[in-house]
Amino acid sequence: MKIHSNSTLLMIGDSITDCGRARPIAEAVSWDLGNGYVALIHALLGATCPGQNIRIRNTGISGNTVRDLAARWQSDVLDLKPDWLSIMIGINDVWRQFDAPLQIEWHVPLDEYASILEHLVRTTRPHLKGLVLMTPYFIELNQADPMRAMMDRYSEVVRQLAGQYQAILVDTQAAFECILTAVHPMALASDRVHPNLAGHMVLARAFLQALEHAW
Amino acid sequence: MKIHSNSTLLMIGDSITDCGRARPIAEAVSWDLGNGYVALIHALLGATCPGQNIRIRNTGISGNTVRDLAARWQSDVLDLKPDWLSIMIGINDVWRQFDAPLQIEWHVPLDEYASILEHLVRTTRPHLKGLVLMTPYFIELNQADPMRAMMDRYSEVVRQLAGQYQAILVDTQAAFECILTAVHPMALASDRVHPNLAGHMVLARAFLQALEHAW
Amino acid sequence: MKIHSNSTLLMIGDSITDCGRARPIAEAVSWDLGNGYVALIHALLGATCPGQNIRIRNTGISGNTVRDLAARWQSDVLDLKPDWLSIMIGINDVWRQFDAPLQIEWHVPLDEYASILEHLVRTTRPHLKGLVLMTPYFIELNQADPMRAMMDRYSEVVRQLAGQYQAILVDTQAAFECILTAVHPMALASDRVHPNLAGHMVLARAFLQALEHAW
Amino acid sequence: MKIHSNSTLLMIGDSITDCGRARPIAEAVSWDLGNGYVALIHALLGATCPGQNIRIRNTGISGNTVRDLAARWQSDVLDLKPDWLSIMIGINDVWRQFDAPLQIEWHVPLDEYASILEHLVRTTRPHLKGLVLMTPYFIELNQADPMRAMMDRYSEVVRQLAGQYQAILVDTQAAFECILTAVHPMALASDRVHPNLAGHMVLARAFLQALEHAW
Amino acid sequence: MKIHSNSTLLMIGDSITDCGRARPIAEAVSWDLGNGYVALIHALLGATCPGQNIRIRNTGISGNTVRDLAARWQSDVLDLKPDWLSIMIGINDVWRQFDAPLQIEWHVPLDEYASILEHLVRTTRPHLKGLVLMTPYFIELNQADPMRAMMDRYSEVVRQLAGQYQAILVDTQAAFECILTAVHPMALASDRVHPNLAGHMVLARAFLQALEHAW
Amino acid sequence: MKIHSNSTLLMIGDSITDCGRARPIAEAVSWDLGNGYVALIHALLGATCPGQNIRIRNTGISGNTVRDLAARWQSDVLDLKPDWLSIMIGINDVWRQFDAPLQIEWHVPLDEYASILEHLVRTTRPHLKGLVLMTPYFIELNQADPMRAMMDRYSEVVRQLAGQYQAILVDTQAAFECILTAVHPMALASDRVHPNLAGHMVLARAFLQALEHAW
Amino acid sequence: MKIHSNSTLLMIGDSITDCGRARPIAEAVSWDLGNGYVALIHALLGATCPGQNIRIRNTGISGNTVRDLAARWQSDVLDLKPDWLSIMIGINDVWRQFDAPLQIEWHVPLDEYASILEHLVRTTRPHLKGLVLMTPYFIELNQADPMRAMMDRYSEVVRQLAGQYQAILVDTQAAFECILTAVHPMALASDRVHPNLAGHMVLARAFLQALEHAW
Amino acid sequence: MKIHSNSTLLMIGDSITDCGRARPIAEAVSWDLGNGYVALIHALLGATCPGQNIRIRNTGISGNTVRDLAARWQSDVLDLKPDWLSIMIGINDVWRQFDAPLQIEWHVPLDEYASILEHLVRTTRPHLKGLVLMTPYFIELNQADPMRAMMDRYSEVVRQLAGQYQAILVDTQAAFECILTAVHPMALASDRVHPNLAGHMVLARAFLQALEHAW
Repeated sequence: MKIHSNSTLLMIGDSITDCGRARPIAEAVSWDLGNGYVALIHALLGATCPGQNIRIRNTGISGNTVRDLAARWQSDVLDLKPDWLSIMIGINDVWRQFDAPLQIEWHVPLDEYASILEHLVRTTRPHLKGLVLMTPYFIELNQADPMRAMMDRYSEVVRQLAGQYQAILVDTQAAFECILTAVHPMALASDRVHPNLAGHMVLARAFLQALEHAW
Repeated sequence: MKIHSNSTLLMIGDSITDCGRARPIAEAVSWDLGNGYVALIHALLGATCPGQNIRIRNTGISGNTVRDLAARWQSDVLDLKPDWLSIMIGINDVWRQFDAPLQIEWHVPLDEYASILEHLVRTTRPHLKGLVLMTPYFIELNQADPMRAMMDRYSEVVRQLAGQYQAILVDTQAAFECILTAVHPMALASDRVHPNLAGHMVLARAFLQALEHAW
Repeated sequence: MKIHSNSTLLMIGDSITDCGRARPIAEAVSWDLGNGYVALIHALLGATCPGQNIRIRNTGISGNTVRDLAARWQSDVLDLKPDWLSIMIGINDVWRQFDAPLQIEWHVPLDEYASILEHLVRTTRPHLKGLVLMTPYFIELNQADPMRAMMDRYSEVVRQLAGQYQAILVDTQAAFECILTAVHPMALASDRVHPNLAGHMVLARAFLQALEHAW
Repeated sequence: MKIHSNSTLLMIGDSITDCGRARPIAEAVSWDLGNGYVALIHALLGATCPGQNIRIRNTGISGNTVRDLAARWQSDVLDLKPDWLSIMIGINDVWRQFDAPLQIEWHVPLDEYASILEHLVRTTRPHLKGLVLMTPYFIELNQADPMRAMMDRYSEVVRQLAGQYQAILVDTQAAFECILTAVHPMALASDRVHPNLAGHMVLARAFLQALEHAW
Repeated sequence: MKIHSNSTLLMIGDSITDCGRARPIAEAVSWDLGNGYVALIHALLGATCPGQNIRIRNTGISGNTVRDLAARWQSDVLDLKPDWLSIMIGINDVWRQFDAPLQIEWHVPLDEYASILEHLVRTTRPHLKGLVLMTPYFIELNQADPMRAMMDRYSEVVRQLAGQYQAILVDTQAAFECILTAVHPMALASDRVHPNLAGHMVLARAFLQALEHAW
Repeated sequence: MKIHSNSTLLMIGDSITDCGRARPIAEAVSWDLGNGYVALIHALLGATCPGQNIRIRNTGISGNTVRDLAARWQSDVLDLKPDWLSIMIGINDVWRQFDAPLQIEWHVPLDEYASILEHLVRTTRPHLKGLVLMTPYFIELNQADPMRAMMDRYSEVVRQLAGQYQAILVDTQAAFECILTAVHPMALASDRVHPNLAGHMVLARAFLQALEHAW
Repeated sequence: MKIHSNSTLLMIGDSITDCGRARPIAEAVSWDLGNGYVALIHALLGATCPGQNIRIRNTGISGNTVRDLAARWQSDVLDLKPDWLSIMIGINDVWRQFDAPLQIEWHVPLDEYASILEHLVRTTRPHLKGLVLMTPYFIELNQADPMRAMMDRYSEVVRQLAGQYQAILVDTQAAFECILTAVHPMALASDRVHPNLAGHMVLARAFLQALEHAW
Repeated sequence: MKIHSNSTLLMIGDSITDCGRARPIAEAVSWDLGNGYVALIHALLGATCPGQNIRIRNTGISGNTVRDLAARWQSDVLDLKPDWLSIMIGINDVWRQFDAPLQIEWHVPLDEYASILEHLVRTTRPHLKGLVLMTPYFIELNQADPMRAMMDRYSEVVRQLAGQYQAILVDTQAAFECILTAVHPMALASDRVHPNLAGHMVLARAFLQALEHAW
């Protein structure tokens, strides 16, 4: 397990991370972390290595884009002084370009996405013991689908930042891809974005595998 | 307009037809027809040819497959003695095969679908002044998607029955296809099945155009 | 269609425009525009010419008179910099004189109504690509009814402003009049003001016809 | 006061009588009689002649027509063995012909209305110490309005039955007419049917004046 | 009727006056005046002399003592510039001495009550066309009951102020006394304070009789 | 303590006994016994002699008169085979004669009350190890009050039955009388019937003192 | 993994199994399995071996003892013809003896527990491909605690039955014991019975390890 | 009874004291004191010595530690100028160390607890007629349980402060210990912290016995 014992892991992101977590800062107590992959990671750690004392905190907010993260970065990341940080952002940056095509000020274009995210990673990395970057994803096998194609480009940005800044990469798209060889996307997420519990377990497992956690 | 003046039009189907309609039989009064294409058809007729006195009734029920329609056909269609009948069924027959792949008793295979629907149409047609058959649809442009491909086969059954039994065909898939040249499916329905109001208007317009209604 | 492609249309008014829209500014996404004529116009455009990219926004507020519009004009119209603007106001200005006759400070007399509305139109028109003025209405055929008679005088103000300021006029009273030759007002609106869905479709159709939109 | 001391007065009718009364049989306790003219009559009697011990019971049901009254006459009138009976019915019999013109089985034509009401009055009158017949009404001054005109014909039936069967007539239309010389119908009832508290007081006053109750 | 035509009557007091009225200032529209004696007075005026145009406003607040009235006198009385004013206060001033005997800062002793009320009446009277002072009351016949006895002393203060400042006195205790010769207090108010509708009608009738209103 | 160890005590009555207890039969678990004297007795026993194992069950129902008890005696008393039984009934038998004077079929006159209660006690006593009879009460010091006077006559019936059938008498009226020398009834029960927690403690204490329970 | 591909696993038990599952029979769709160990097992299988097609169904009911299982065994187990069955029962059988010591008919003594459970296992085993028996547990390290001591005896019954009837044993008490070397019981379940998500993951992991499922 | 007549007793603490009390300061009126030991003490005093006029106020807040008390000491204790003060704090100071072991800033270590509490007692004692210090408790008989062991150390701090500052000590742990010889902790509190009504009566009785109150 790469995360050090007795350290704090802060997880930030959008609705996939939020999942109804407690406000203002969700702690790893009971269901307060929400009912998504963050809570599952906490439960998996609690059931396998409770003595490692890894404290998880969650500041994901539904609907957020990377712009929203930047706006609350000071209070929701830096002020909390986490040892480790996990970021999964980008789905809404892309999605709004397809479900709200006319609301252009809601869109975050690729270059702006890359620029903001790079800034956040670069300035924060020095303060961290470790950083995890999770790609955004779209639970759609057809790579020609315009929204899938665009999401892949945003994921590529995350991949490059991970390499550049010594972050652990969690390739969520690849994790889902693997499952989708056996089941149709409809069995994971009717909107191809918000997974059911099995889908969140795919995310949690990919996260823990990237961190070399032993089950 | 092909529907005769002073006649009753009964519309039956699944959640797309239901849309929160009143129980047990929804009448064309206020919002009681639900908030979907049925209500829009009523409103469009009311705003353009109120003197034609076409009474719309709605007995759609969310989640229904063609099996469910057959089970309630006597009370929800035959006993109501409509002049005209509209049927849109099949989406759930297909969907369950993808979002609940292990619950096989929830699936309605193609041959059973065809057989039941043919029976309903054949025995009911003689009692009607007119019949409208609406295909099921999947708001997905990729024809290689397994769920889209299967839905097309179910739609083909409807198309053949329409020809065989002098019914008016409403090709809902084609109607959506046309819109999808301009917008991504996400702009109509996040789950590719339950459309927003614009999507319901696509259905209503396709219906009225098939009936040669003048706007 | 007179509204230009790729332009924004802002619609402001009272409860007929509001219809439960989202706050603070309703966008043309899903049901957020409310369940009235604004949403229907959006849906009709979406179902017939989605490629024209006309973005509709709604800032109607229930109970508003022209005084209320003036008080929030800066934030709810000018700051939003729409290409096109649609205004329907006046029903409450008149109604309060009849259902709350003693609450005289709630009444907006004809001259004040004309003066405020003229001011808003005159100062805003130069910033717009196009302006639509919708008359207020009262779904009552008896022109001798005092409230109908007064409403007609307010509508006349709107008609004159439309001519004077190159606005497109939507004569909503005339649109309803035409329907009322076939049905009693009770079939559209029990209070003669808040129409059912068919009544809102009458408004939407009148709007789109005035704009020469092809169905 | 024509109603005898120590007697029971049963009041039956539609939503105007119902007004949210308690079920199954509303007693003259607190607000259980509903918040309409029935409760006001009880309160006016209680405040002026509490010693007369007139017990009021209410079995009005919203939406009822004279057909509905006939169907529940045994349980809701005869079984209760009232000394006095008051009936106000007919508004829905007429209204449905205007707000639901296509739902013809919901309409009660004039001859059927007269026939059923005459039967109820004729067979019940011998069991009563006294009978009060209240006309239906429509809070509309324009006698040429089709709904007002039809309502007047139904009221005429009530007037004739009152004369024929020694019943006390309460001319509710006349009572409202008098008020409408001073205020517009909108000040009493936005739908011209369901009055506000002042409108219910008009009904209560007309009732008590017809019974020669001294204030 | 002593209240002049075309004048405004403001009514202030405690829960008996409040009765669930609208906020911040209740107008004589529909049920907004609450469901107590204020609304009944409005309805009785509306049903008998609608042309006199007497506008009633209600600023009663549940639980208020005369201290609370004084604290909000500027905003809830003076700023509203009524023509006529009606005050009924004192029940809570007394009640708290009996149901919360240890919470002494909640009690308003007789001298403080007299002093504050005298101040309010003296400074406000010159700005009014007319003033109505309603005594507090306790629906209890036993004059030896300590709470009844104390309430009578508070009522005496009101009576003296009425004489001193040319106000119309409404002796609510006397009005109830008269009814209680026929029924037990339990038939009006289970807590001897908050009357049912018949009890509120007793108050409304006493008010209108004091004002020489003709039914 | 007169109640034997390891025995069951069933308590039946009206709203004072009910107090929101669980259905169908309330057990002495947590708050299921309601929030009145029954729960307090259970708690007092649990805090002082938990080893005596006295199981309390509650079948009180709000609004009950002795007639209602008789109607459910088989299922709610006899079938439960309690060792000890406690009955407190009669308040509603009397109250309805004062708060609903015209609803005479709701009244239970003294002779009927005595006759039914005597029958219940006589036929049940042989099956019990012990019986507790609690008088009804009215928290009113004025013995000339008609409702208090009548309640005293009903209590006298209970007292006589207790003597006649070897039951333990709990004189609840006397228990309250004693408290009322120090506080006004308003401090215990605004309607003189439903006490606050202190009033329920008066009942619980009177019960336990009659049973010679040591605190 | 011992459970065969393409087979159905039915899980039955008490509140730990129920966890708010859908009624009447919970399917492995979305959150319908509840939010406990059953859903976690489903999610873990879905995230690691979705192609094995193991269908999980849940018929746990909160509060059940083995007596309740027996009463619904036909409809909730046998009629469903599962390939595999998992049973976890006994916590309430023991718990009621401690939190409701006087309600003895709620207790299931050890011999009755053993006898009923043995009967269910013996008669059902021949119809199954595989059986999983999960012991009850009490999240309490102190083996001298009377409830823990009793629970251990009930668990011993389960262990013996597993050996006797070729069932896979899941020793839930041992699984928790291991975690409790690192954390206090309060970190898993404040009542030592209903675990938080980490506690449910302990159960899910113990289950899958017993079945030799590879993560 | 040690508390003087005509004095005020303020009770402060955590959820055991709070129990849903009214805000901001709970008075001894009806159920406003919450449904725990504070209300029971008030009721027991009210039922035995109502003339002593002891006014109880409650400012307990759920979840509080001694740190939270200190932060609101000025407004919630000193500003209220009570004659007597009762403090029960410490359960959460200890509990968080066991149910949220990683959230270390939520823990209040023993020395900090002692230091803060000593400061509050020392500075407040001179302003009081009397002070009651209630120990925290853990309803667990096993003294080797780490949470019980730690709670005993916190209680010891309270005991010493009571001796040092002339406060009356209520040894709540001892009071429960005595009951637990007869029943298992599960019969009082499933989480060993929040007792049922019988458990709260144990606290109330211990309090009143320490104050030498005669039942």
